[in-house]
Amino acid sequence: MKLLAIESAALVASAALSEDGAVAAEITLNTKLTHSQTLLPIIDELFARTEWRPEDLDGIAVSAGPGSFTGLRIGAATAKALGLAWGKPLVAVPTTDAMAYSLWGSRFLICPIMDARRAQVYTGLYRFEADGSFTVLENSAALSMEERLAGLKERGETAVFLGDGVPVFRKTIEDTLGGQALFAPSHVSRQRAAAVAALGAQLLARGETVTPAAFAPFYLRISQAERERNARLQASEPV
Amino acid sequence: MKLLAIESAALVASAALSEDGAVAAEITLNTKLTHSQTLLPIIDELFARTEWRPEDLDGIAVSAGPGSFTGLRIGAATAKALGLAWGKPLVAVPTTDAMAYSLWGSRFLICPIMDARRAQVYTGLYRFEADGSFTVLENSAALSMEERLAGLKERGETAVFLGDGVPVFRKTIEDTLGGQALFAPSHVSRQRAAAVAALGAQLLARGETVTPAAFAPFYLRISQAERERNARLQASEPV
Repeated sequence: MKLLAIESAALVASAALSEDGAVAAEITLNTKLTHSQTLLPIIDELFARTEWRPEDLDGIAVSAGPGSFTGLRIGAATAKALGLAWGKPLVAVPTTDAMAYSLWGSRFLICPIMDARRAQVYTGLYRFEADGSFTVLENSAALSMEERLAGLKERGETAVFLGDGVPVFRKTIEDTLGGQALFAPSHVSRQRAAAVAALGAQLLARGETVTPAAFAPFYLRISQAERERNARLQASEPV
Repeated sequence: MKLLAIESAALVASAALSEDGAVAAEITLNTKLTHSQTLLPIIDELFARTEWRPEDLDGIAVSAGPGSFTGLRIGAATAKALGLAWGKPLVAVPTTDAMAYSLWGSRFLICPIMDARRAQVYTGLYRFEADGSFTVLENSAALSMEERLAGLKERGETAVFLGDGVPVFRKTIEDTLGGQALFAPSHVSRQRAAAVAALGAQLLARGETVTPAAFAPFYLRISQAERERNARLQASEPV
């Protein structure tokens, strides 16, 4: 089964071509360039370097959120356009699930945190079992860091944190959890398209696909523009 | 600390630029193209896409073997040439250590296997401890698959296998170890330069560097050409 996977939910732009047991090619960038400048060129390059053709694909897996509104929109627009043009189904992979899956087989609880601004993080909670299976303990949600840490303190198990929320909240995490908190080292600290591909392949095998037209990212929260519009509407409503 | 990392010990060609907590860029190819066609272009591209300059680097980490003779020689020649030209120290990362490190925090024993031909594998054995620290249980060695599996059976713990030896020996492993064996999924089943960078950064911080002139890969075995030459020499020696 051949997949193109796209990850642009946060600062990282990553794309991969994956076939069953191994990744054929993966390019990951964590630079200041915007996804609109990077994502299509790296997808183009993956096909050029592997000599794969779009018609070989069985589907397109996309990191579907939560995450940055702009990042998710660019990823969604790209996946929808390519899926439509090539006649391929999309597979929506929750972003925090894919982040956790990049720490495959971990002996620790896995806690991705993405900075969601307004003192919140997009997060989830995951575990790998003794047979290697992957358990979602808590689905993606937008939580305050206090809620996130209180829940972990109650569980009492060691958790490993990853994601762009780590540099923002590292001191708070250490102060609250002490030795119960670990931080993923550089090579497993951010999003990767290959992890999206690995989970996406499982969803595709179970037939859990969506048409390019129907696909929409999981925003979890409304955008700042919508929030401001709602506030204006409420303020102008007669009481 | 900024590092360029190079991985070409087996079929995978991979390069990464890494800085402290995160990978700035990584390109990994697992295609039929030879490393002499792929390695320098992807290194070139990493610098172009990140706008990093070679003079920003603190060192060059290289996957130093064991592995394919040709792959190791191309990786070594590339790292030595760049290190010499840019005046940067090299850091030699054992290939099987970096493969195991890509499964950071694993709850299972980690057993990389690379097909070494002649019914042998290049392998090692690794574990992550409860505090996240990385233990080398067995250093890189060339073993027969029987020796490899006998040692694991004796330990009695679940082990996860990764590397290009897996497709070759999977059935033998399953027949011998049954449920005691797991196989790494696609995104963590092969070499990655980012894992070389993560371990390389630790070595560099401890001052464990080598000059470009002095660096040599860990071949572990002599090459087929040398073996044949030795056989010819022995055959022509007076008894």
